[in-house]
Amino acid sequence: MKFYFLTLFPEIFETYFQTGMIGRGVKAGLIDYAVINIRDFSGNKHHKVDDTPYGGGAGMVMAAPPIVAALKSIPDFRTYPVVYLTPGGKPFKQKDGMTLSKYPGIVFICGHYEGIDQRVIDAYVDLEFSVGDYVLTGGELPALTLADAMARHIPGFLGNGDSLAEESFESHLLEYPHYTKPRDFEGQEVPEVLLSGNHAEIKKWRLSQAETRTRLIRPDLFEHYQNINK
Amino acid sequence: MKFYFLTLFPEIFETYFQTGMIGRGVKAGLIDYAVINIRDFSGNKHHKVDDTPYGGGAGMVMAAPPIVAALKSIPDFRTYPVVYLTPGGKPFKQKDGMTLSKYPGIVFICGHYEGIDQRVIDAYVDLEFSVGDYVLTGGELPALTLADAMARHIPGFLGNGDSLAEESFESHLLEYPHYTKPRDFEGQEVPEVLLSGNHAEIKKWRLSQAETRTRLIRPDLFEHYQNINK
Repeated sequence: MKFYFLTLFPEIFETYFQTGMIGRGVKAGLIDYAVINIRDFSGNKHHKVDDTPYGGGAGMVMAAPPIVAALKSIPDFRTYPVVYLTPGGKPFKQKDGMTLSKYPGIVFICGHYEGIDQRVIDAYVDLEFSVGDYVLTGGELPALTLADAMARHIPGFLGNGDSLAEESFESHLLEYPHYTKPRDFEGQEVPEVLLSGNHAEIKKWRLSQAETRTRLIRPDLFEHYQNINK
Repeated sequence: MKFYFLTLFPEIFETYFQTGMIGRGVKAGLIDYAVINIRDFSGNKHHKVDDTPYGGGAGMVMAAPPIVAALKSIPDFRTYPVVYLTPGGKPFKQKDGMTLSKYPGIVFICGHYEGIDQRVIDAYVDLEFSVGDYVLTGGELPALTLADAMARHIPGFLGNGDSLAEESFESHLLEYPHYTKPRDFEGQEVPEVLLSGNHAEIKKWRLSQAETRTRLIRPDLFEHYQNINK
């Protein structure tokens, strides 16, 4: 799968795709990426890409022509979903990552300032996603967040197939607590049941822990979990 | 404000804090950061920081001793909120960024693999936050996301004071659409009202656009907006 990023700040992407599991996925040929600097398509000698909003108001708006020129520089861009990251979009969920990971490529448009000209969205954007109810300096972290969430669904990306299935959200519960060596850490012991070797008891304990946490921290998820397990 | 990151992948932070508005905030002395590599505190010659989970199951768990040793390397760490990023945490919201931005410093623990030993959370973590209902390869992007959202609330960080106030979530509405030059882009015109110079009409149009979008895309936010505007 190939990730295309349209951005004013290319550096962050280069580093992320060289690091950690994502870097390993690139080296293994499972994922690929291209970073396109919108400023290279400004069409003016000052490399200006933004302007004041029509109708007045604070801040600057990223103009349509450089963004669309950058988009059109991607071969076959019309065959990929074009995603704009904005707090005004649909909340991105685990299942969206799963669905989008099936495409051979995807294009992310990273906004800055007050946002991008609406006409880019109307004519070229297929999906508007929000990563959460908070405002960031730009769409770079959200775009990386979507790419990272999607990469995990690409066959072969995760070392251990089980890791994906046992996770939060796919079971509609938050995760149970994890413990590893040492058995005693600063006077805190690992819960007895985990040392028992009784797999049925361990499973029961973990489910009960996951249910309690979900009920306390995420009543919204817990309600959904109860409905599907009725 | 100083951001401390405990991580296995330091590179991404260095790049982010040199780039864009965040980089400008660092240069202006408004924000500072330190990246602490948990692996430097492994206490073993193979720099191993994870192990298999007690009770069995997929994946590896990050052990408590290296994380806590890394934490204790921060001078006065007990005076800062210690945040663990996990899909199992409380959903991070705009107002959390505002509240947390008032501290002189904050520590983020970035997990990997199946997560970190629960005893670190029980004894050292003040807040567990989730950035959204999706699973990522690690806590690095979520930690940067929180730092970025917080930075925007630091006085002097944003060039234009109005930008913060007009934004999504603080008014409980998604943003209205933005337009800038050119007036005609590929046959799409800027809406007439924005060219009218009639500020009352423009304000009315923008509010109506924001309300319509919020009702369609985020009925949950819209309900809240209606309740507070009753």
